[in-house]
Amino acid sequence: MSKISGFSKLSKSDKVDWVCSNYLNGSPDARLIIKQYWNSDEKLQKLHDEFAENTISNYYLPFGIAPNFTIDGKVYCIPMVIEESSVIAAASKAAKFWDNKGGFKTEVVSLTKVGQVHFTFKGEYENLKTQFDENKSTFFHEAKDITANMEKRGGGIKSIELINKTEALEDYYQLHCTFVTADAMGANFINSCLEQFGKTLEKIMNPQFQVEVIMCILSNYVPDCLVRAEVSCPIDALAETKEDAENFAKRFKYAVEIANVEPYRAVTHNKGIMNGIDAVILATGNDFRAVEAGVHAYAAKEGQYKSLTHVEIKDNVFRFWIEVPIAVGTVGGLTALHPLVKVALKMLDNPSAETLMRIIAVAGLAQNFGAVNSLVTTGIQKGHMKMHLLNILNQFDATKDEKEKAVEYFKTHTATHSHVVDFIKSIRS
Amino acid sequence: MSKISGFSKLSKSDKVDWVCSNYLNGSPDARLIIKQYWNSDEKLQKLHDEFAENTISNYYLPFGIAPNFTIDGKVYCIPMVIEESSVIAAASKAAKFWDNKGGFKTEVVSLTKVGQVHFTFKGEYENLKTQFDENKSTFFHEAKDITANMEKRGGGIKSIELINKTEALEDYYQLHCTFVTADAMGANFINSCLEQFGKTLEKIMNPQFQVEVIMCILSNYVPDCLVRAEVSCPIDALAETKEDAENFAKRFKYAVEIANVEPYRAVTHNKGIMNGIDAVILATGNDFRAVEAGVHAYAAKEGQYKSLTHVEIKDNVFRFWIEVPIAVGTVGGLTALHPLVKVALKMLDNPSAETLMRIIAVAGLAQNFGAVNSLVTTGIQKGHMKMHLLNILNQFDATKDEKEKAVEYFKTHTATHSHVVDFIKSIRS
Repeated sequence: MSKISGFSKLSKSDKVDWVCSNYLNGSPDARLIIKQYWNSDEKLQKLHDEFAENTISNYYLPFGIAPNFTIDGKVYCIPMVIEESSVIAAASKAAKFWDNKGGFKTEVVSLTKVGQVHFTFKGEYENLKTQFDENKSTFFHEAKDITANMEKRGGGIKSIELINKTEALEDYYQLHCTFVTADAMGANFINSCLEQFGKTLEKIMNPQFQVEVIMCILSNYVPDCLVRAEVSCPIDALAETKEDAENFAKRFKYAVEIANVEPYRAVTHNKGIMNGIDAVILATGNDFRAVEAGVHAYAAKEGQYKSLTHVEIKDNVFRFWIEVPIAVGTVGGLTALHPLVKVALKMLDNPSAETLMRIIAVAGLAQNFGAVNSLVTTGIQKGHMKMHLLNILNQFDATKDEKEKAVEYFKTHTATHSHVVDFIKSIRS
Repeated sequence: MSKISGFSKLSKSDKVDWVCSNYLNGSPDARLIIKQYWNSDEKLQKLHDEFAENTISNYYLPFGIAPNFTIDGKVYCIPMVIEESSVIAAASKAAKFWDNKGGFKTEVVSLTKVGQVHFTFKGEYENLKTQFDENKSTFFHEAKDITANMEKRGGGIKSIELINKTEALEDYYQLHCTFVTADAMGANFINSCLEQFGKTLEKIMNPQFQVEVIMCILSNYVPDCLVRAEVSCPIDALAETKEDAENFAKRFKYAVEIANVEPYRAVTHNKGIMNGIDAVILATGNDFRAVEAGVHAYAAKEGQYKSLTHVEIKDNVFRFWIEVPIAVGTVGGLTALHPLVKVALKMLDNPSAETLMRIIAVAGLAQNFGAVNSLVTTGIQKGHMKMHLLNILNQFDATKDEKEKAVEYFKTHTATHSHVVDFIKSIRS
């Protein structure tokens, strides 16, 4: 296992050679696998190679679609990128279930994003505050070169506030800034503004105040970039018989309440929501780490980690909704570069960032409906293992006949990985 | 925009036709794009299609490598799957920086996973407790069929506890269960055990106690499946001059302290960590939603969302570490199915789940070192925009000459998307 200098400067082919020789025992198989994922269109491959550094191959994630989503009266077919089985099936099933019950209704609650300049100052807060207030317009003025275009698109800087954080940390102050970024996710715009604010701050304050900027950076915590999605129907519509419907509603509500009071459950409850959300985030070329961080921090905002979805049963109406912070873009970044992302956005009728927020929240809600539905009825393993079973069978190159036998057998047996392996061995021996 | 019944039963080709006709205006371009991502090896393509449902294409994420990671004295080349520019470059740079300073040191703190049976009971807790205690061994006994193989591999059920949660929610009780799952992530194993526990519980308790199982499900909150990674060096080694080194150490420490006291910063600080962690999670066929949920909930465990990394400066030694819950597997699931995942695992010398935890924690720590390093020195935009700039230039099919001109120009200008577009237009006119 060796080290190397100047690796990033090697050609892609030399990088593959190096890693095969040094970490894959010169395996010709590994080399073939790495290369069999290359696209035959060289220009397209080069485009994908340049998205990141030291790229040696393409990692495939399934690009699937979930049709029949009625959202605010319009029908969508939602592109989803996810490697986990059952997610797209569950989304499609939930879409269908709610379709004849009025579909999904959404509301964009707010659209504000946040960034901060973090700095130190050792003097009297009042003096700093006076100097800041007197020069506040300079921040806007000196960022004009960056904001001009965003303003044309209806976005820009919303506010710049000086915050005294010295109770939390010695000498610590912030410029807490808010932005609207139109159809862009806005990370580059916000960071560029903030770095300019940092320069302006030092210019205004120094040498007199000896302000030291520590860092300028957007926040992925966006509790004011919030979207809600909801479904509702008379309880009776939830199942074929009145008794089943009432029982289902009661158990479903209780399951969501459990997720609200028990963090161990809440984390997995919300994880399931993120299965749906991230699948659309990925398909539309957005950054799932950013959304994940913002969503989970939002789930913990009250001091205990809680459910992102809620149920109310009132006047015989079952209402189920989600409220999540989603900062995404439909212009800039990968959205303009990744050919399949362009197709995904076109499939969604080239949505604004606001509309995409709605669609994403719906995907999350649908996913949660599917998961909780399974959990309180048949259990999660039934659907999950069906797909998992097929994956294991594929791994053993099972024939169609073997697959049918296995599916039949595991209808009444627990399909752990080792049981499936044993079963294949037994029918083959 | 139309609806459809029986979509999942259509052939892949018919699915593509349907979505092209109904959602892509019959666009032949869209059809070509969807198909140009198909692998020419039909069997391989079929394998990938079956990972999820309604798959119509492969979504490419760059598969890159970050060499020169010395972890506990062994040198690794880490496979990373990520669409965001700068992440792999930052990881590689951090690996190099720490390589001649002793590299990364890790410790697996604990390996316990959690699952729960959530149920209701309306009587006296004491009676329930007595019945549970008297029949506890039955739970282990009746799950034997599921646990036998896991036990051979050193895993199994660790504990089953009855928890009274009626203060949080009326009639709410749990079986809170812990597991060790050897080299498997263990989701299927744990869920299969829990569903069996649910059956056993009802058998033991009913009809006498009228226990109603609501759901049985593992938790992705795994605070006791914990790994630490650390780097340290004398302060002087952090930069060329003593003054620069001390200044860097001071600013770096302050930046991490800010992330500890300010949730708006903490969320993005940890998001950067997840850039590194998720890239390895994806490359090794694990589930990033599961890890994301567990990690962020862990960051919020003290009631306020905080930094996952920490700095200490003591006796002229700079120490920087991370502590994160990481539940992953190196057997089962995609690890055995996705050919490129197999290559990634081989590249890491086919690690145990424990070793993979260490590598993942290191990737997170390295990423955070890179991000905070940039933030407190040159600012985050410099490196970020360099890659972003290349992406925009590619979007406009810029020639090599145009690229060089642009890189030169944007060394001293803020490279917002619109500025780059204007620049390209200007040099072309």
